[in-house]
Amino acid sequence: MAHIDLGVDEREFPGITGPMTFRPETAKPLNELAEVLLRGPHTLSPGERELIAAYVSGLNECRFCCASHSAFAAAQLDGGASLVDHVRADPDGAPISAKLRALLRIAEAVQQDGRKVTTDLVDAARAEGATDLEIHDTVLIAAAFCMYNRYVDGLGTLAPDNAERYEQSARRIVAVGYVNSLTAA
Amino acid sequence: MAHIDLGVDEREFPGITGPMTFRPETAKPLNELAEVLLRGPHTLSPGERELIAAYVSGLNECRFCCASHSAFAAAQLDGGASLVDHVRADPDGAPISAKLRALLRIAEAVQQDGRKVTTDLVDAARAEGATDLEIHDTVLIAAAFCMYNRYVDGLGTLAPDNAERYEQSARRIVAVGYVNSLTAA
Repeated sequence: MAHIDLGVDEREFPGITGPMTFRPETAKPLNELAEVLLRGPHTLSPGERELIAAYVSGLNECRFCCASHSAFAAAQLDGGASLVDHVRADPDGAPISAKLRALLRIAEAVQQDGRKVTTDLVDAARAEGATDLEIHDTVLIAAAFCMYNRYVDGLGTLAPDNAERYEQSARRIVAVGYVNSLTAA
Repeated sequence: MAHIDLGVDEREFPGITGPMTFRPETAKPLNELAEVLLRGPHTLSPGERELIAAYVSGLNECRFCCASHSAFAAAQLDGGASLVDHVRADPDGAPISAKLRALLRIAEAVQQDGRKVTTDLVDAARAEGATDLEIHDTVLIAAAFCMYNRYVDGLGTLAPDNAERYEQSARRIVAVGYVNSLTAA
């Protein structure tokens, strides 16, 4: 049970959806940020950006966010869930582009501490073709998930155990996005 | 110098203002979130909420955010800068309410890891009169500054050394808020 009374049945509103229903004033910019970062027009595909989100959520060991964004990435990447699992377990060995691998290394540094992002990490991403916008957004996606993960776990919210629940959310996010996802829940 | 070309003179646009100018699409929800959390209608004063932001930014050792939000808190609290310094150095001994002290303990747990927020910490805050909304917003402020801090430091932005620069920003934030602060810079 969550640390505060969210005013909802947590089985119906698990993870971040409970606090977002409790506090719509903060849910609005939180969802808008996720929409721009993960689904807005970009040279990185939504699947690639969701993969960065899933990877950081895994490093933060946030069960709800990691399962959610792993499912959202799987739904939008050719390799599906097996690719997502491979990347999360072994980013160096997984069959992804050298550019995405270099961006994941930047995301990993951000997850630990912003100051861990070195010129070498940035130069390595740039050498694989990463643009300034891609580097910026990778840093902000990783930073944002250090927020979402702490929000979800800091309030002690429920993380469902069944994979089908997250796949259902993935279909909704892919269809209507983050901004409309609560009303469409 | 920042890790990417932000397209601005960093001395004029230090810290988060450079990346926000570079990427207005993400600046919008980031500023809206700060406005709701730190300045929206609330039972905690803007000064108290800025103090939580400054405290977390200090724990993350983010020079720009800590100096900024310390100045913003000082400008809006009766105790001014000396109270902010006292709280940051010794939250247990500083002359603040028992409720705010208990909320700072929750914020400190969130900064480390969301899962560190225990029922005991939440019960202690509630025993001092904290409401569910105050607990929720403390968790989200602390989580959000784990994002802002990583965003600012992950891009290697400039943190000015002179205190006057942050006091100038404080006057602007108090006068016009976060959403209008970039255009009013």
